[in-house]
Amino acid sequence: MRVKKLDLSTSGVRVVVLNDEDASKLNLYGLDRVKIKKRNRCVIAILDISDGMVKKGEVGCFKEVSDSLNLKNRDEVKIEYIKKPRSIYYIKEKLDGKVLDKPKINEIVKDLVEDGLSEIEVTYFVSGCYRNGLNLEEVSNLTKAIVKNSKRLKLGKKVVDKHGIGGVPNNRTSMIIVPILAAAGLIVPKTSSRAITSPSGTSDTMEMFSNVDFTVKEIEKIVRKTNGCLVWGGTKELASADDKLIKIERPLSLDPEGIMLASIMSKKFSVGAKKLLIDIPVGKTAKIKNMKKALHLKNRFINLGKKLGMKVKVLISDGRQPVGNGVGVALEARDVLRVLKNEGVEDLKEKSVLMAGIILEMSGFKNGKEKALEILESGDAYDKFKEIVKAQKGKVREIKLSKIKYDFKSSKNGKVVSIDNKMINQVCRILGCPRDKESGMYLDVKVGNKVINGQILFSVYAKNRKKLKESLGLLKKVIKID
Amino acid sequence: MRVKKLDLSTSGVRVVVLNDEDASKLNLYGLDRVKIKKRNRCVIAILDISDGMVKKGEVGCFKEVSDSLNLKNRDEVKIEYIKKPRSIYYIKEKLDGKVLDKPKINEIVKDLVEDGLSEIEVTYFVSGCYRNGLNLEEVSNLTKAIVKNSKRLKLGKKVVDKHGIGGVPNNRTSMIIVPILAAAGLIVPKTSSRAITSPSGTSDTMEMFSNVDFTVKEIEKIVRKTNGCLVWGGTKELASADDKLIKIERPLSLDPEGIMLASIMSKKFSVGAKKLLIDIPVGKTAKIKNMKKALHLKNRFINLGKKLGMKVKVLISDGRQPVGNGVGVALEARDVLRVLKNEGVEDLKEKSVLMAGIILEMSGFKNGKEKALEILESGDAYDKFKEIVKAQKGKVREIKLSKIKYDFKSSKNGKVVSIDNKMINQVCRILGCPRDKESGMYLDVKVGNKVINGQILFSVYAKNRKKLKESLGLLKKVIKID
Repeated sequence: MRVKKLDLSTSGVRVVVLNDEDASKLNLYGLDRVKIKKRNRCVIAILDISDGMVKKGEVGCFKEVSDSLNLKNRDEVKIEYIKKPRSIYYIKEKLDGKVLDKPKINEIVKDLVEDGLSEIEVTYFVSGCYRNGLNLEEVSNLTKAIVKNSKRLKLGKKVVDKHGIGGVPNNRTSMIIVPILAAAGLIVPKTSSRAITSPSGTSDTMEMFSNVDFTVKEIEKIVRKTNGCLVWGGTKELASADDKLIKIERPLSLDPEGIMLASIMSKKFSVGAKKLLIDIPVGKTAKIKNMKKALHLKNRFINLGKKLGMKVKVLISDGRQPVGNGVGVALEARDVLRVLKNEGVEDLKEKSVLMAGIILEMSGFKNGKEKALEILESGDAYDKFKEIVKAQKGKVREIKLSKIKYDFKSSKNGKVVSIDNKMINQVCRILGCPRDKESGMYLDVKVGNKVINGQILFSVYAKNRKKLKESLGLLKKVIKID
Repeated sequence: MRVKKLDLSTSGVRVVVLNDEDASKLNLYGLDRVKIKKRNRCVIAILDISDGMVKKGEVGCFKEVSDSLNLKNRDEVKIEYIKKPRSIYYIKEKLDGKVLDKPKINEIVKDLVEDGLSEIEVTYFVSGCYRNGLNLEEVSNLTKAIVKNSKRLKLGKKVVDKHGIGGVPNNRTSMIIVPILAAAGLIVPKTSSRAITSPSGTSDTMEMFSNVDFTVKEIEKIVRKTNGCLVWGGTKELASADDKLIKIERPLSLDPEGIMLASIMSKKFSVGAKKLLIDIPVGKTAKIKNMKKALHLKNRFINLGKKLGMKVKVLISDGRQPVGNGVGVALEARDVLRVLKNEGVEDLKEKSVLMAGIILEMSGFKNGKEKALEILESGDAYDKFKEIVKAQKGKVREIKLSKIKYDFKSSKNGKVVSIDNKMINQVCRILGCPRDKESGMYLDVKVGNKVINGQILFSVYAKNRKKLKESLGLLKKVIKID
C-alpha cells in the first residue's frame, strides 16, 4: 500500500484509513487493529474506513502514525490484521460485572496510556466502572496502575498534600494552606485543576500572580527551593491516564466513583504525598449533597489510603455556601491576598487555618491550629507565598476588578437562609468566568446574616454591559431571605 | 473563524476541529456540540480539539460539514456552543438501568440516524442496552423507531420473509426457499447479510450468479417483475441505524439481545413482511448453544411479532453441523444449484422444503411441504431462480472450484459423532473465505455416518499452497470419529 500522509492528528491514538474496497479485500473492519510495517519497523494502529479520504491502494496515515514510522508520501507499507489486545477482554469482563484483578487493571491502564485503545473501547471501560462500580481493591489497583504509568515527583518523606472535592465557589484554601505548611518546613508540591464548570480553579486563580504550567523537572526545582508550589496538575507527565478517562466521561457527565477516587489518589501518590487531608464540603447545592454520601466517601478515602500506604484524614465541611466573599478569578485572588495579609475574609481564614492545623498535627506538630494561625498572622505565610510566586516566575501584584459593576440589593428585612452555589456558578459563567478574569461576584452577606431592605447583598462585575445584562435575570435566585 | 477544509470524512458524523487556545477562549471542550453558522445557514457538529491540525483563528471542517454548508477555504463562519441533545439524557437513563418509553427511544434513533451522536455517546447507549437489557416494549419501540427512520419497500400484502439466526455453515436455504415461494405467487423481497465471521453469507453466495447491491427503488422493480429477490440488506437506505450500532458493537463483539432482535425485526418490517419464519439452529458449536436459550428467543420473536402486527413462526432446527456439504462461496453456490436442479444435497433440500412449506401454510396454502416439494421437483423453483438472477443482472453459470485440493481421510473405523462448526469456520477463514471464492471445504460425511479407515471425510480447497498448508494443523479437529 502507498502512504498518503493526512494532516490530521487525534492527540494520541494512532489511526490509519483505508478505502472500503481495500479493507474488504483484506477482510478488515473499521476499528480493527492493524500493524503498519515499513521494512523492519512497525506500529499498531486502529483502522478507519472511508472512501472519500483515500483511493484504492492508498493508506491514509494520521500524524501519530507518520511520525512514529517517519513516513513520506508514497512510501510502501504493509498492512496486517492483528488480534485484539488482551485488555479488550478485561474491559468486557468489567462491563459484564466482574471484578478485575491487578494484572488486568494494569493491562487496561497501560494500553490506555500507550494510546492502544480506541475511544469506543475506553467508553466501554468507563461504562463498566460506572454501572458496576469498583471495589476497594480495584480502586487501589487502578490507582497504582495510573501511578505506575506516569512520572512521579521525588521529594523525600515529608511530603504532605490536601485535596478538596469541589463544588463550592471560592474555597481557595490551597493558596493559604500551602504557604503555611511550607513555612513550617513541610514539603507541599500542590497540583490543582483549572475551572471546568466552576467560575475559577486554584490554577486559574494562582495564574493572577504567576505561571502554573511546568514540567515535572521544573516542579521539583521549585519545591526544592521553596518547600512548596501551586501548579496546574494537568501536565501530561503526571496525569496521562486520567486525562483520557475524563475526556470520555464528559459527554454524559459521568463521574464513576471508583475512577474519581483513583484519579485523586493517583495524583497524590504521584507527587509522593505520605500524608493527605481531604476536604468534603456538604451542602444541598454542593457536589456532595448529604452526610450519608460524605461519610461513605470518607470511609473509602481512609481505607484506600491504608491500601496505598498513605495516611489520610478527611474533613467534612460546610458546603452550603461559598467560602470567602469573592467568586471569579480576580475576586478570589483578592480574597486570598487579604487572608495572607491579615485583612479579613474570616471564613476562608478559619477554614484554611483549621486544615493546615490538621496536616501539621499529622506531621508531628503539637497544637496544629495555633501553630498555623501563628505562621499566618506573623506574616511568614505571606512571605512564603511571595517566595513561591517568585519561584514560579511571577510577582504578587494588586488585583484590579472590572469597572462595570452592579449592586444587588435586598428588597426586604430578614435573615439570609440560603445561598445557592449552583446559581452563583451559573451567573459567573454568564459573566465570562474564568475567561474574563476581572468578572465575578462579591458576596457582602453570608448565611445567617440579618439584612435590611435596600442593603447590598452582593455585587456583580462584568467585562461588558451585554454580559451584565444577560446575568440579571438570575440574580434574584442567588440568595434567599426570610 | 476562517474555514480550513480538511480532506477528511467520518462516513457520517459531522466534525469540526479547533485549536486548543481558541477552544479554551470559547469555553469549549472536545466532544461538545457546536453550531457552525455561515450567514443564515447552519449545521451542528461535534468538536474535536487538535493543535497540530489547525492554527489559531481557523476551524478545520470535515467533508460532512464543508459539503452541507458548501464551504470554501477561508470562508468566515461563526462557532457557537449548543446544549446537548435530549437523547444524551435518555442514553444516560438507559445506562442507569431505566426503562425508556417510545418518544425517548425514537429521539435516540433519530439522532443516531441523523449523525447527531458521537461514537462515544452511541457506545454508552449500546453499553446500557447490553448491561441492563431491553424489555419487550422497548425492543418493539426500538424496532419501530429504526423502521420510522429508514426507507421501506411497498409491495403489497402478500409479502413473506424468513430469517436464520446463523452460526451454522452453509445453511443456504434462502436461495432455495425464495424461488419456491415466488413461484407459488408469494412476494419475497429477501435481503441478506454478507459474511462477517462466517465463510460466506447468502449475499456472498448469491454474488456468484448476479449483483446483490441495489437501491430500494431497484429492489422494488426486481420484485415486481419476479415476485422475489436475493439482495444484500446492507444498503444504507434500509438499515442506517442498524449499521451504526453494529459498528459500535464490533470492538467488544457485543450483541445485546434487544438490539439484535430490533435489528432483525426492523429489517423484516422495512421490506413490508406480514408473515415471517425464523430459523434458530441449536448446537454446541452454533450461535445458540442450548434449547433453553432457543426457547427464550422463540418466545421473544413471537411476542415481538404480535406487538408489531406481524405473524411470526419459529423453527428450532438442528445446528450441530453444517447444512449441505459445501462451505465457502463457490461450494455453497454449487450445493444450492444441485438442490434446485434436483441433483442431491438431501439435508439442505429437506430443510428448505420444510421451511418453505411452513411459510406456504402461513399464507393459506394446504399441505405446504408437499406443495413446496412439488414446486422444487417440477423445476419451477429453478426456473424462478434463473428469472430472479436475470432480473438482478446476472446469469446462472457452472461453478468452478480451486484446483488446489487436499483430501482429509479417516484414520480409523467408526461413526461420526460430531462436526465442529466453529472449527470449520476457522479453517475456511484461513483458506481465504469469503475473499477467495473458490476456496472452502466439502464434507463427504455427516454426523451419524459410519466410516472406515482411509475413507475421505472432507476435502479442502485453497487458492494457493501456502494457505492450504496453514490450515492443515486444524483439520483433525473438524470431525470426531468414535
